[in-house]
Amino acid sequence: MSRPEPSLLDQTLDHISPADAAVRVTARQRLDQLAMPHWALGRLMDLALDLAAITRSMNPRVDRKSIAVMAGDHGIVAAGVSKFPQAVTLEMVRNFVNEAASINALARQVGARVTVVDVGVAGDLSDLVESGKIISKKIAPGTANFAEGPAMSREQAIQSVEAGIEVANQLGGDTDLFGTGDMGIGNTSPSSAIIATLCERSVGDVTGRGTGLDDEALAAKVATLEKCLKLNQPDPRDGLDVLAKVGGFEIGAIAGLILGAAAQKKPVMIDGIISTAGALIAQNLAPACRDYMVAGHRSVEQGHRVALDHLGKQPLLDLDLRLGEGTGGALAMNLVEAAVAILTEIATFEEAAVSQAEKL
Amino acid sequence: MSRPEPSLLDQTLDHISPADAAVRVTARQRLDQLAMPHWALGRLMDLALDLAAITRSMNPRVDRKSIAVMAGDHGIVAAGVSKFPQAVTLEMVRNFVNEAASINALARQVGARVTVVDVGVAGDLSDLVESGKIISKKIAPGTANFAEGPAMSREQAIQSVEAGIEVANQLGGDTDLFGTGDMGIGNTSPSSAIIATLCERSVGDVTGRGTGLDDEALAAKVATLEKCLKLNQPDPRDGLDVLAKVGGFEIGAIAGLILGAAAQKKPVMIDGIISTAGALIAQNLAPACRDYMVAGHRSVEQGHRVALDHLGKQPLLDLDLRLGEGTGGALAMNLVEAAVAILTEIATFEEAAVSQAEKL
Repeated sequence: MSRPEPSLLDQTLDHISPADAAVRVTARQRLDQLAMPHWALGRLMDLALDLAAITRSMNPRVDRKSIAVMAGDHGIVAAGVSKFPQAVTLEMVRNFVNEAASINALARQVGARVTVVDVGVAGDLSDLVESGKIISKKIAPGTANFAEGPAMSREQAIQSVEAGIEVANQLGGDTDLFGTGDMGIGNTSPSSAIIATLCERSVGDVTGRGTGLDDEALAAKVATLEKCLKLNQPDPRDGLDVLAKVGGFEIGAIAGLILGAAAQKKPVMIDGIISTAGALIAQNLAPACRDYMVAGHRSVEQGHRVALDHLGKQPLLDLDLRLGEGTGGALAMNLVEAAVAILTEIATFEEAAVSQAEKL
Repeated sequence: MSRPEPSLLDQTLDHISPADAAVRVTARQRLDQLAMPHWALGRLMDLALDLAAITRSMNPRVDRKSIAVMAGDHGIVAAGVSKFPQAVTLEMVRNFVNEAASINALARQVGARVTVVDVGVAGDLSDLVESGKIISKKIAPGTANFAEGPAMSREQAIQSVEAGIEVANQLGGDTDLFGTGDMGIGNTSPSSAIIATLCERSVGDVTGRGTGLDDEALAAKVATLEKCLKLNQPDPRDGLDVLAKVGGFEIGAIAGLILGAAAQKKPVMIDGIISTAGALIAQNLAPACRDYMVAGHRSVEQGHRVALDHLGKQPLLDLDLRLGEGTGGALAMNLVEAAVAILTEIATFEEAAVSQAEKL
């Protein structure tokens, strides 16, 4: 009797191992000798160590960059958690395809490719799927309203993570550096619910104004999310349970993209609060995948800081961004390339015939 | 009787006027309408306003980037303020020419040209001048030791500023975005002395470890600089007096580069503590030139924060850098290009046919 084929998720988790400590040591030895005051390029040198350890290479390749923008809708918008109408998710997907959105402009500036994936938009995008302009991994036209019960079934949660893995595998042939992006009106609400659960913090600690709520609307959002968590009781030890009960399809797909990148031993840029909620789910499923994440920026959303701290990640940029789409990650991609340049293009004291510091 | 020809410095100061408030308003009107939550790209949108106002254009050109690395030596090293021997200034100039230094690697990554200028290196670089590899504006082989008297004469101070203006004018024909860089063993000492004087702060508040002093050496550096300021009594109302008494040739040249960029109505990236000391001198000579400065990063050196606050500039990056050479400015140049992309490449709600937020 043959054993059942393991699922794509299980196969992927099996392929994730920590970054390579030995290559990190070798990289540190070189950086210690560069013709500059010791470690004078600070956090970019730390990043260079990470990139060497991730890729198992003293010459990490990062030039082929792909940002996957995962799009999905959210039943929770019925509770009035966003200022924008749900139709904006679909409208923005068309804006991405027309290359006129923020992520298009910023990805173009860093030479990154943008791939838009419909994992759960509430609306018809079949024309864009047929013309090859977007990828469809559609699970359902939006999640259920998690103020009334789980956002999705456990099977759908797995399906959303596997959608992200499939995208990582599809892009992987010509991608060295992945970026996570999101589009989904209302998606700071599931993100805050996930962060509160997995970081074991109060909803108030991790909930912000999203696209621009005022004080009253923010208080209502916090109260709503508190009720949702009480109703659904997501289990913090079980990332798939959290994703199913209070998550979103695009958040699951982001988690999958991260797992896929880690299985390929490639770095993946984390963007804002939605991407970082996905990163928490991914870490819950495979703790070692954390090694492959590079935190692009710290957003205005307060839950983002909590989530990054939980992941032990210090972001590269802090520019008061609060957009999503993958924009903060795109902006930081040049710094990843700069870190590689530090590792590969700067001469040591000896190579440059420059005198070293006197021992004091 | 003909009037005497005004000096290059005076001519340049005459050409500096504030950035354009009207273009800023026009730029804000466009950014207010972009298809995103309001001002969701935060500080990069503020930067986009600055760039429009600087260049008087809704499509600011910033793609042709030039970093001028001003090199000079310092008599104050005789007081033991640096761990590195003075010969390193000259050795590093050769390293720059061989394109193997940090600034070369990081400028290459952003597509910026590096121009090395000898304004006062204590050593013979005539071979590099003759072969056209560096520009010579040499004033003297290093400043005098300002622990014993002024670092230079007032005439030399003017000469160093004019050297920087000449470089700005020479590069200006094919430069849209300038970057300031420095090389000079011991140059955090004059920088701290300038910052203490012009920001009216104590030496202890603005003096850091430079290339890596320990606690004892840092305390000695502070004591030395306190004595130097007491001896020289630089006048904070007179930037040229401050530059002459406790400055450096490369710091004067950086001030000149900034003035030259401002006179050309072009943005100029400020790097670390040495560049920012130069920026304070420039601002003292022409307050409006501040409008043309973009602060690249916040360095580990504590005086840098004080100087940036005094200029009213929030830096783009904060990555624990403490290298100089222009590296922090180079790293931030992509963010300047990204800010222009935000102004010029992102569709408005109306252009993209995306629904706007509901009025709450």
